[in-house]
Amino acid sequence: MQLVLLSGGSGKRLWPLSNNARSKQFLPLLEKEDGTMESMVQRVVRQATEANLTNNITLATNASQLDIITNQLGNKVSVVTEPERRDTFPAIALAASYLKLAKGCANDEVVVIMPCDPYTEFGYFKTIAKMVECVNANVADLVLMGIQPTYPSEKYGYVVPEQEKSSTEYKKVARFTEKPSVDVAKQLLAQSAYWNGGVFAFRLGYMMQIVEKYMPISNGDKTLSFDEVRNRYSEFPKISFDYEVAEKSKSVAVVPFSGQWKDLGTWNTLTDELKQHTIGNAVMGAHCENTHVINELQNPIFVDGLKDVVVAACPDGILVCTKQHSEEIKKAVENLTPRPMYEERRWGTYRVLDDSYYADGRHSLTKSITLKQGKNISYQIHHHRSETWTFVEGEGIFVLDGQEQRVKAGDTVVIPVEHWHAIKAITELTFIEVQSGNPLIEEDIERTEWKWSE
Amino acid sequence: MQLVLLSGGSGKRLWPLSNNARSKQFLPLLEKEDGTMESMVQRVVRQATEANLTNNITLATNASQLDIITNQLGNKVSVVTEPERRDTFPAIALAASYLKLAKGCANDEVVVIMPCDPYTEFGYFKTIAKMVECVNANVADLVLMGIQPTYPSEKYGYVVPEQEKSSTEYKKVARFTEKPSVDVAKQLLAQSAYWNGGVFAFRLGYMMQIVEKYMPISNGDKTLSFDEVRNRYSEFPKISFDYEVAEKSKSVAVVPFSGQWKDLGTWNTLTDELKQHTIGNAVMGAHCENTHVINELQNPIFVDGLKDVVVAACPDGILVCTKQHSEEIKKAVENLTPRPMYEERRWGTYRVLDDSYYADGRHSLTKSITLKQGKNISYQIHHHRSETWTFVEGEGIFVLDGQEQRVKAGDTVVIPVEHWHAIKAITELTFIEVQSGNPLIEEDIERTEWKWSE
Repeated sequence: MQLVLLSGGSGKRLWPLSNNARSKQFLPLLEKEDGTMESMVQRVVRQATEANLTNNITLATNASQLDIITNQLGNKVSVVTEPERRDTFPAIALAASYLKLAKGCANDEVVVIMPCDPYTEFGYFKTIAKMVECVNANVADLVLMGIQPTYPSEKYGYVVPEQEKSSTEYKKVARFTEKPSVDVAKQLLAQSAYWNGGVFAFRLGYMMQIVEKYMPISNGDKTLSFDEVRNRYSEFPKISFDYEVAEKSKSVAVVPFSGQWKDLGTWNTLTDELKQHTIGNAVMGAHCENTHVINELQNPIFVDGLKDVVVAACPDGILVCTKQHSEEIKKAVENLTPRPMYEERRWGTYRVLDDSYYADGRHSLTKSITLKQGKNISYQIHHHRSETWTFVEGEGIFVLDGQEQRVKAGDTVVIPVEHWHAIKAITELTFIEVQSGNPLIEEDIERTEWKWSE
Repeated sequence: MQLVLLSGGSGKRLWPLSNNARSKQFLPLLEKEDGTMESMVQRVVRQATEANLTNNITLATNASQLDIITNQLGNKVSVVTEPERRDTFPAIALAASYLKLAKGCANDEVVVIMPCDPYTEFGYFKTIAKMVECVNANVADLVLMGIQPTYPSEKYGYVVPEQEKSSTEYKKVARFTEKPSVDVAKQLLAQSAYWNGGVFAFRLGYMMQIVEKYMPISNGDKTLSFDEVRNRYSEFPKISFDYEVAEKSKSVAVVPFSGQWKDLGTWNTLTDELKQHTIGNAVMGAHCENTHVINELQNPIFVDGLKDVVVAACPDGILVCTKQHSEEIKKAVENLTPRPMYEERRWGTYRVLDDSYYADGRHSLTKSITLKQGKNISYQIHHHRSETWTFVEGEGIFVLDGQEQRVKAGDTVVIPVEHWHAIKAITELTFIEVQSGNPLIEEDIERTEWKWSE
């Protein structure tokens, strides 16, 4: 079987820790049994592997998340990137095309689609295994997970099973209801309806038939390549998988799940699951109650006298908010951070230390940049800024205008405007970069490849 | 007359904004009528000048505060620095010696001693003018200010006037009572006692007689110089002016003052006087009550849902505390900041951007340093660290091993270990300094003077 994790969202709801480059599913806030920290997506991949579900995991995501996924999951997963954000049907159509055309999966292989960040337990993955069994046993074309509702929520879609007695393992689906009123939700609960958890299992061939309605893959002698499908991504309609596939399908079954299932999408829900009240350099006084501090800055934080408050500090900003009101921060903070001040990239991480404008109109940007051992930054040139790099940890190879040289902690190199340069880490390598120029924007860059001599 | 402001304290009570290099009286948090900000000591100097009291103002302080006083008050004041912290009697003895021996004041000149940071009003300085009149009229050897008590406090010293009817301008003092119980304080209030506000007026000769008891200034032909008195500072007893002078004096009068008089020494009292609820890059949501945010960092702060809370953020740390509990933070934060992360020096300011230790045992420190126009850093050498300076604003003259060169924004210079260097600002000059070495401590420095060619 093939497991596809849908990784979407940018999300300001967990500001300042989440930003356009680091969605909530990548925040390293969940403590593992060994005391180390993992992100929501790392947790799901670990759980799927530990449940012996599969090692064939593909992340379907936006191109902007490729670097952080590579950084957090390395070669544990394949990655399919959408060229643009559309909706869940096109995203799943692209992932299916990838499995078929790039990975060469057979039409009768079972594919399971799920969100990349539910906060859930072992039984959830056991339920997925049952769904796979149902597809293999030809119970239905499409099998989905039904979450046992705990209250008549207006937020979820509902899956209504047929009322006849059937298997205890699964039920045939009669119909779907999207986000009902509380009164309707109460009626649905009386009919033993489930929440639609966004987990779907089907044979690859079933999905490819639907894909071909919009984009004929095989046309006589010619078969499209995956790259060709991806280039024509905008031809897929902007519609959800629920509307385009689930609600139109004549043959749908649901497998129920009733264990832990949460979306840690707000500070209120996330802090409920944190094992410690402080993460990072923080001290809590004796008069705090139900208060959490997460500090990714070097500056120490001291809190006291607070009740039901979350404090979150990182280069992008500092939040101090009662958990109740933290649900509303998305709009308030929309314009607070002009650019991400911390990013995980495929080669490592950077942190903005200083971003200053001066009376003479000049602008400077100072970053701490860390490359993982063996990783490199592409060969690049800037047209509007010079850079000074002072190496403070490790060893590497620096290229300037085609000349390689070894560099190590203590060395400084200067890269004038319009000079090609790259850097590769021999050991883990950290340097302080001072950018000077106008404008100082990430987009002032041209890239090519450098053929490293070692 | 001569006005002497006593500037003491280091104070963690306003952590993180105050530290050993920046006591509470130097925090630029008070808004002037024109909307610009001033510190408590800047306010007192401005008020004394606006009240036409005097332009002869001397700050008596610890050597560690010399740089920040120069930065905030420039040549508006003279400065006397104690070689070590002792108590108020030695501090005032040293200031009197300075006025007599260095400034050449006459024995009959009136000297007024006051704290450097009361939060008070015009009438306070008018009261000082009355005290000066009393000394000039030979009402008493020592005239002090009596603050009209508002409640039977245990925190203050009390001045008990003689009960006979006397002038409305002043009263003769019968006795002093230090920090009484509440019951005793109530009795003192019934006797029309005043709080001792620590403001004293006397003729310079009166004080010098007492100084000479401990250190004969004139001995036959020879008169000590001020530097000689300062070098022998440890010979003065560690005792307060109240015990050594006020309580022993046979001739003391008190001039009452009943206007605004506050010590803004805790977040609780200080925030009461702030005109704005946010200072710096901060946004307050709609559900806050009696909450103040002071942000000296670049990172934006968003707060919501808070009641009676102070948030203060600067390079030294971040405080989030109910105002009630902010009175107790001194002990809690004692070990939170290993070194000041922001300092005002006589030549300008610096801010620590990053202070990191790496797996290979190396340490790096990155600072943003700004020199005021025309100011310079002394010619210096480090034995354990190299430095890279990247200039990001302005123009200056850089010296390395005796060679001067002009530098400007965009330039980088490297200073290897054991090389003499200095920098002078032609215009306001900012550079990013990356220190690398072991150990990285401020004390790894030798200084001398450089004779600038321009």
